[in-house]
Amino acid sequence: MKFICQKNVLQEAISIAQKAVTGKSTMNILEGLLIKAIDNKITIIGSDTDLSIETKCEAEVLEFGAIVVEARLFGEIVRRLPNDDIEIATLENNTLHISCQKSNFTLVHMGAEDYPTLPQINENMVFNIPQGILKNMIKGTSFAIAQDETRPILTGVLFEVKDSKLNMVALDGYRLALRREFLETSNTISAVIPGKTLNEISKILEDKQDITNITFTTNHILFNLGNTKVISRLLEGEFIKYGSIIPEEFNVKITGKRSEMLNCIERASLMAKEGNTNLIRLNIEEDNLIITSNSQLGKVKEEMSIILQGQPLQIAFNSKYLIDMLKIMEEEEIVMEFTSSVSPCVVRNKDVNDCIYLVLPVRLLNN
Amino acid sequence: MKFICQKNVLQEAISIAQKAVTGKSTMNILEGLLIKAIDNKITIIGSDTDLSIETKCEAEVLEFGAIVVEARLFGEIVRRLPNDDIEIATLENNTLHISCQKSNFTLVHMGAEDYPTLPQINENMVFNIPQGILKNMIKGTSFAIAQDETRPILTGVLFEVKDSKLNMVALDGYRLALRREFLETSNTISAVIPGKTLNEISKILEDKQDITNITFTTNHILFNLGNTKVISRLLEGEFIKYGSIIPEEFNVKITGKRSEMLNCIERASLMAKEGNTNLIRLNIEEDNLIITSNSQLGKVKEEMSIILQGQPLQIAFNSKYLIDMLKIMEEEEIVMEFTSSVSPCVVRNKDVNDCIYLVLPVRLLNN
Repeated sequence: MKFICQKNVLQEAISIAQKAVTGKSTMNILEGLLIKAIDNKITIIGSDTDLSIETKCEAEVLEFGAIVVEARLFGEIVRRLPNDDIEIATLENNTLHISCQKSNFTLVHMGAEDYPTLPQINENMVFNIPQGILKNMIKGTSFAIAQDETRPILTGVLFEVKDSKLNMVALDGYRLALRREFLETSNTISAVIPGKTLNEISKILEDKQDITNITFTTNHILFNLGNTKVISRLLEGEFIKYGSIIPEEFNVKITGKRSEMLNCIERASLMAKEGNTNLIRLNIEEDNLIITSNSQLGKVKEEMSIILQGQPLQIAFNSKYLIDMLKIMEEEEIVMEFTSSVSPCVVRNKDVNDCIYLVLPVRLLNN
Repeated sequence: MKFICQKNVLQEAISIAQKAVTGKSTMNILEGLLIKAIDNKITIIGSDTDLSIETKCEAEVLEFGAIVVEARLFGEIVRRLPNDDIEIATLENNTLHISCQKSNFTLVHMGAEDYPTLPQINENMVFNIPQGILKNMIKGTSFAIAQDETRPILTGVLFEVKDSKLNMVALDGYRLALRREFLETSNTISAVIPGKTLNEISKILEDKQDITNITFTTNHILFNLGNTKVISRLLEGEFIKYGSIIPEEFNVKITGKRSEMLNCIERASLMAKEGNTNLIRLNIEEDNLIITSNSQLGKVKEEMSIILQGQPLQIAFNSKYLIDMLKIMEEEEIVMEFTSSVSPCVVRNKDVNDCIYLVLPVRLLNN
């Protein structure tokens, strides 16, 4: 194998494929990147078996071939080379020669034949969605993924295509996040993608209109971004029927400014850290939301203007769940819907109907 | 006590005084900030006994007084309040009320009478130096402070005033860093300042021409920056006579570009990490410096242009020491002076004579 590639181009490709190299695999070869040189393109593949990333870049290929090279060291060498053409060639004795200007490296490489083959995916049923929107939907839901493994299915995000919509849903025992976008398709699908692989995918997606093609098989999902393909294993099992969790009716509804509420709750939570309960109380009054918290540290009272529909209500929350949600929401005006002080609170944008958030309250002894 | 202070002004003052609150003291009260309100100024003091910082800011003082309040929580509350006037007042039962717009906090405070008094320093013998220059001298030397405590005096930086010069010197067993600036004084002094307090002082100093007044007592040094005074304990004992360590003569001298050498050595060190020896070899040839390293990972050869005076030489180093030094130096052209492959290497700027660095080579078996 022998090729010449521009440093910046090669560095970018390595950094994409490297996102799938987690170093957590027990297979030594998965700490490497598979590099294939063929037809004036090089293909770089990284994988931890759950997540695989394949990316292509332009190069002047002088000799076809394929090798596996330790990802971290190879990436670091390329990153530190001058911004010029880099020549990469295999020598005898399983060594790889990397040269650029007056720098010369010789590394041991592994054999491409030992690298596991990627899952074959027939790109038949394809959904198209702009990268920026998908990235945003991941950001808007993945924070609510369950952190513990007691119910493995909840460590993923539900991808549900039906009625020409893509719904992405994450939930742990305490809150739920749903993002929804229009999708031009008559197909339906329901699959759960591991949260940790979604986070890596999110780093590769760019905030732009370029289309991602998404394909599903029984066990995998493929994101095709053009030069880069990302394949993730799906989680096995049935996701929770989230529709039945979200209350359709409410007694009390408040409308207010998201950033003001976030600031009030963040300040109130400073006094709620004692014993890690993060407990804050919301007193919903006519025109006013009063947020209080008490602990051994002292006490705090925050006040903000709201519009109330319904009766005044007192309800308590773990402030962390409200803060996570308010940070991730994007519209400035939000509505919160309540049924009682022990029922879930539903939060939406006031104007744009592309998300539903749900947070369980904390039941107080004196409620 | 009662005063009104602009949020940004108060936040800035807290963040300065808080740098001395390390949480490492066994005295509970030193986790607090001493706040004194008097004569339309408030004074905020933080201390961990080794390092004390006192800073003043403007405020509308409605009632004189002094209290101690937990630094971290108080700082966090003020930081998160809206950018407006903050009113701070003591209430009954050792509580402090903090209010700003619609936010109201009540905290427990401690008594000012329990706070230790700062060392009294008679500001007689004063040296003046611009803040930016002092900050730069700290940066240029403190990286070479000894990290282990086997010789406690080496965990500090020597401040030596003589012959109208300020010399700052740090050294561990493997390298030495000296920075030198002109100082308009006929006094002489020699004192060793703890490295960790110097790093905190460096964060307060600004990159500007404003003058710092420096005063010494037998046990302390005081930096007076106008609104802020920083008092540090001095290390006890005699510093190593560094003058005798720095060779005055040399056989071999090379001149080259600092950033090019840094890049070459950083790349070469990628292959030198095996076993944490960081061993790289320098082959000094006519017109050329060749840097090589070998390990189980592979090998590397880097080459750069130099001007050589004297005979070719082979010498080996721990790359970390060269990298630390080359990163901290500022001029683009540097000179390196060698006597033999087992003698210290002296590094200076080619043109500006304000620093001397010294690095010990690694003795190789086949030398």
